[in-house]
Amino acid sequence: MVCASNCHPKHEICCLIDNEMTSANSLFDHLKKSCAKDWQRYTEHEFVRQLGAGTLPESAFRHYLIQDYLFLIQFARAYALAVYKSDTLGDMRQAAGGMSTILDIEMGLHVEFCRGWGLSEDDMAAAAEDVACMAYTRYVLERGMAGDLLDLHAALSPCIVGYAEIGSALAANAGDARWDNPYAAWIEMYAGDEYQKVAEAEKAFLDDLMSRRGGDGRSDSLADTFRKATRLEAGFWQMGLDHAAD
Amino acid sequence: MVCASNCHPKHEICCLIDNEMTSANSLFDHLKKSCAKDWQRYTEHEFVRQLGAGTLPESAFRHYLIQDYLFLIQFARAYALAVYKSDTLGDMRQAAGGMSTILDIEMGLHVEFCRGWGLSEDDMAAAAEDVACMAYTRYVLERGMAGDLLDLHAALSPCIVGYAEIGSALAANAGDARWDNPYAAWIEMYAGDEYQKVAEAEKAFLDDLMSRRGGDGRSDSLADTFRKATRLEAGFWQMGLDHAAD
Amino acid sequence: MVCASNCHPKHEICCLIDNEMTSANSLFDHLKKSCAKDWQRYTEHEFVRQLGAGTLPESAFRHYLIQDYLFLIQFARAYALAVYKSDTLGDMRQAAGGMSTILDIEMGLHVEFCRGWGLSEDDMAAAAEDVACMAYTRYVLERGMAGDLLDLHAALSPCIVGYAEIGSALAANAGDARWDNPYAAWIEMYAGDEYQKVAEAEKAFLDDLMSRRGGDGRSDSLADTFRKATRLEAGFWQMGLDHAAD
Amino acid sequence: MVCASNCHPKHEICCLIDNEMTSANSLFDHLKKSCAKDWQRYTEHEFVRQLGAGTLPESAFRHYLIQDYLFLIQFARAYALAVYKSDTLGDMRQAAGGMSTILDIEMGLHVEFCRGWGLSEDDMAAAAEDVACMAYTRYVLERGMAGDLLDLHAALSPCIVGYAEIGSALAANAGDARWDNPYAAWIEMYAGDEYQKVAEAEKAFLDDLMSRRGGDGRSDSLADTFRKATRLEAGFWQMGLDHAAD
Repeated sequence: MVCASNCHPKHEICCLIDNEMTSANSLFDHLKKSCAKDWQRYTEHEFVRQLGAGTLPESAFRHYLIQDYLFLIQFARAYALAVYKSDTLGDMRQAAGGMSTILDIEMGLHVEFCRGWGLSEDDMAAAAEDVACMAYTRYVLERGMAGDLLDLHAALSPCIVGYAEIGSALAANAGDARWDNPYAAWIEMYAGDEYQKVAEAEKAFLDDLMSRRGGDGRSDSLADTFRKATRLEAGFWQMGLDHAAD
Repeated sequence: MVCASNCHPKHEICCLIDNEMTSANSLFDHLKKSCAKDWQRYTEHEFVRQLGAGTLPESAFRHYLIQDYLFLIQFARAYALAVYKSDTLGDMRQAAGGMSTILDIEMGLHVEFCRGWGLSEDDMAAAAEDVACMAYTRYVLERGMAGDLLDLHAALSPCIVGYAEIGSALAANAGDARWDNPYAAWIEMYAGDEYQKVAEAEKAFLDDLMSRRGGDGRSDSLADTFRKATRLEAGFWQMGLDHAAD
Repeated sequence: MVCASNCHPKHEICCLIDNEMTSANSLFDHLKKSCAKDWQRYTEHEFVRQLGAGTLPESAFRHYLIQDYLFLIQFARAYALAVYKSDTLGDMRQAAGGMSTILDIEMGLHVEFCRGWGLSEDDMAAAAEDVACMAYTRYVLERGMAGDLLDLHAALSPCIVGYAEIGSALAANAGDARWDNPYAAWIEMYAGDEYQKVAEAEKAFLDDLMSRRGGDGRSDSLADTFRKATRLEAGFWQMGLDHAAD
Repeated sequence: MVCASNCHPKHEICCLIDNEMTSANSLFDHLKKSCAKDWQRYTEHEFVRQLGAGTLPESAFRHYLIQDYLFLIQFARAYALAVYKSDTLGDMRQAAGGMSTILDIEMGLHVEFCRGWGLSEDDMAAAAEDVACMAYTRYVLERGMAGDLLDLHAALSPCIVGYAEIGSALAANAGDARWDNPYAAWIEMYAGDEYQKVAEAEKAFLDDLMSRRGGDGRSDSLADTFRKATRLEAGFWQMGLDHAAD
C-alpha cells in the first residue's frame, strides 16, 4: 500500500483528495482499511472457515440459505432505491440492471440451489426474518434513504465485494480439493469470473460516485456506514452458526 | 352506471365498500367520476383537439415532445419507487417490469420518434424542465413517497389511463382519415392494443391494491391525489400550447 | 371482549369493519390480539419480571439504558418522519409535538436518570448500537417510509403502548413494596398518569388514522407490521438480559 | 470578490477546495454566483420592484399571501425531512427548531398578517395550490429525499437567504419613505434583525455541511439544485403578478 505513510492520522482514511485513484487506493480499499479488524471478523468468520473446510453443519448452512433468500428481496428493494436516487440516466440504468439481475436471475438461481438442499421457495417465503437479517437489510435501506446514492453504496459494498473476496480466498485455499466440499457450488458461484466482475464494477462505481458526489469531508461518515454494514455482515454469519445444532 | 343513485353525497365517491367491484365500478372509474370536470379539461384539452385534427402547430408538439422525454426519466424513477414500496415479490416484479419498459424500450422509441421531428437525444437531455413538467413529476414522486403504493398509483393513473382514453378517442373520431394527420403515429401508439392493455392492467392493479391496502376511509384522500394529478396533466398540455408560436 | 366470537377465522382480526369502534374494540386491541403470544413474550419478558421484582442485575439495566438512549435518537427521527408523512396540519402539529417532547424533554430526563446510574451522556453517545437496537429502530423507520402514516404508527405503537402496560402492571403487582425496588423510578415513570395519557392518545390516534386511511383490507398488513415490531421489542429486553454478567 | 480570477472555467464555481472559507467565499456566495442572472431575475423580479414601490396591485399580493400559506405547510415538512436526514443530534435539534418556528410561530404570524388583508385561515386552507407553488415545494422535498441533507439545504437556501436579501434591499432603497408603503410590514419582517440572523445562520450551516458532507466533486450538482430552486422562486413571484387583475 503506497499511501500508508500518508494516512489521515485520525480516521485511517488516506489519499482521498487524490482524484485519480489507482486501484491501490480506491475508495473501497480505504474504507476496508478504516475498519480492518471488523473486515477480518466478517470475511474470516468461523462460518466462512467451516464452509471452506466443508465441515459446516448442514443445519447452519440451511438456515443461512433461507435468510439469504429473504435478504435478496430486501436487496432488490435497495437497488430500486438506487434507481430512485440516481442523478443521471446512466446511473439509473446501471441500478436498474442490478435490480433486474436480482429479481429475474439471482433469485431463480437461489431457489434452484436451495431445492438441492431440500428447501422449496414456499418454505423460504414463509420463514420469519431473523433479527440479524432485519438489522442488516433495514439498516442499508434506511441509511440509503437518509443519505444519498454514495451513502447507499457505502452500505451495500461490504456485501457485494466481501462475498467476492470470500469466494476467491476459499477457492484459492482449497485448490482442487474444493470439489470434494459439499459447499463447492456456493464457493464456485462467488469465486467465478462473473461474480468477480460484479465486485470490480462496484468498486469502480464507488470511485466514480466519490468523484461526483464526494470529497474529503465525507470520509468519516462513509467509513462509519461501511463499518456498521461490515459488522452486520459478520452478524449474518454468526446467525447461521447459531443454528448449527437445529 | 348502476351505482349512480347511491353516490356518496359529499365526495362523489360511491360503492367503494363493495369488495368485488365490477369493471363498471372500479376504483379508477370512481376516481374519474369524483373529478369529472377536471378529467374532461385534461382529456379534451385544446392541445388534444388540435392534435386529433392535425392542426396543432409543430412548435407546440415539439416542445411537448422534449418535455415528455424529461418526464419519462422522472416516471421511471416513480416506478423504481413503486418497487421499493412493494409489500410482495409479485408487486415488486410488476413495478420492475414497468420500470424496465420505460428505460429499455419506451425511451428508445421516444428518441427514435423525436428524431423524425428533428430532435436529437442530446437536445432533449440538455433542455431545461418546464415548470409544468416539474410540478407534475415531483408531485407524483413526493406524494408517492409520503403515502403508500396505492397513493403512488392514484397519482400515476391519470397519466397511464388518460393517454389510453385520449388515443382511443382520437382514433375513433378520425376514422380512416387519421392517417393523413401528421400526428398519426402518436395517436396510433396510444390507441394501439399494446398500450390499451397497459392501461387496463393499471386499472385492475388499482382495484387489487384497494382491496389489499384500502377501504372506504381512503376515498377522499385518493380522490384528492387523483384530482391534483389530473389538473397537472392538463397543465402539461397547456404548456405545449403556450409554445405554439415559438 | 364482545367481539371474540366473531373474529376473522384466518387473521385473528375482528370487527374492523365497524367504523365506530368502542375502546373495547379499538384497532390497537385488535392488533394486540392478533399476536397475543408475541405480545405476552414482550410485556412479560424475563427482563421485565426481574425489573419488577428488583432482582435484575445492574449490568443488564445499564446496558439497556445505554441502548435506550441510542433508541430515542432514532425514535425522534421516526416522529420527524411522521411530520413529513402527515396529510393535515393537525397531524403535523401532533407529530411535531411528539418529536419535540423526545428531543427537548425525554432525552434530558433520560440523561439525568442515567447519571444516577453512573452513565454520562458522552458514554452513551459513544456506545455502538446493539444489533437488537438497530433491527428495531431501522425496521420502524424503513416500514414507515415504505408505507404511510398508519403503517408507521402500527410499527411505533408496540413501544409506546407496551411500556404503559408494563409500567402499569409492575406498579399494580408491587403495591407499596415497589418503593424498595432499585428500579422504582423507572416503573413510576411509565406507570404515571402523564405517560399513561401518551399511550391512550396513541391508541386513539390509531383509530383516527384507521378511519381516515384504512379499512378492512389493511388488517393483515398492519397486523404483520405490529407483530414484527412486538418481536423486536422482546429482542430489546433479551439484549439487556444477555448482558447480565458484564 | 477576491476569488474571481480563479473561478472554475466551466461551472463558475470557485475556491471550493479551500476548507476555511471566509464569508467572502462561502458556499452560498459561490452558488449564487453560479447562477447570477437567475438570482437577479428572482431577487429583482417585477413583483418585488412593485412591492418595494408600493404600487403592487393588492390582488397580486393577496394571491401571493394565500399561496405563501400553503407554501409554509410544505416548508415545515421540508424541515421535518431535515430532522430525519440528520446525522447528528445537533443537526436534528437545529432542524427541529426551524420546523417548530414555522408551525408554532410563523404560521400564526402569517395568519394574523393575512387577517389584515381580509383573508381568514379557512380561506387559505381551502385554496387550491397554484402550479408554481406545487412545482417549487415538491421539487425541494423530492430533491431533499433523493439527495442528502446538503442537497436539501441547497434547495432551501434560495428561499431562506433570498428573502433576507430582498427585504434588506427594499428597506435600504426606500429609506424612511418605506413606512408609507402598504407593504411596509412585509418588508420590515424580512429586513428586520431577527430574519437577517436566520439567513446568516443558514449560510453558515451550508458551509458547515459542505465541510462534513461535501467537497469539490459536489459543486456541479449543488449548483444545479440551487439554480432550479432559484428559478422556481422567480416563478412564485410571477404567479403573484399574473393575478394582478383578479
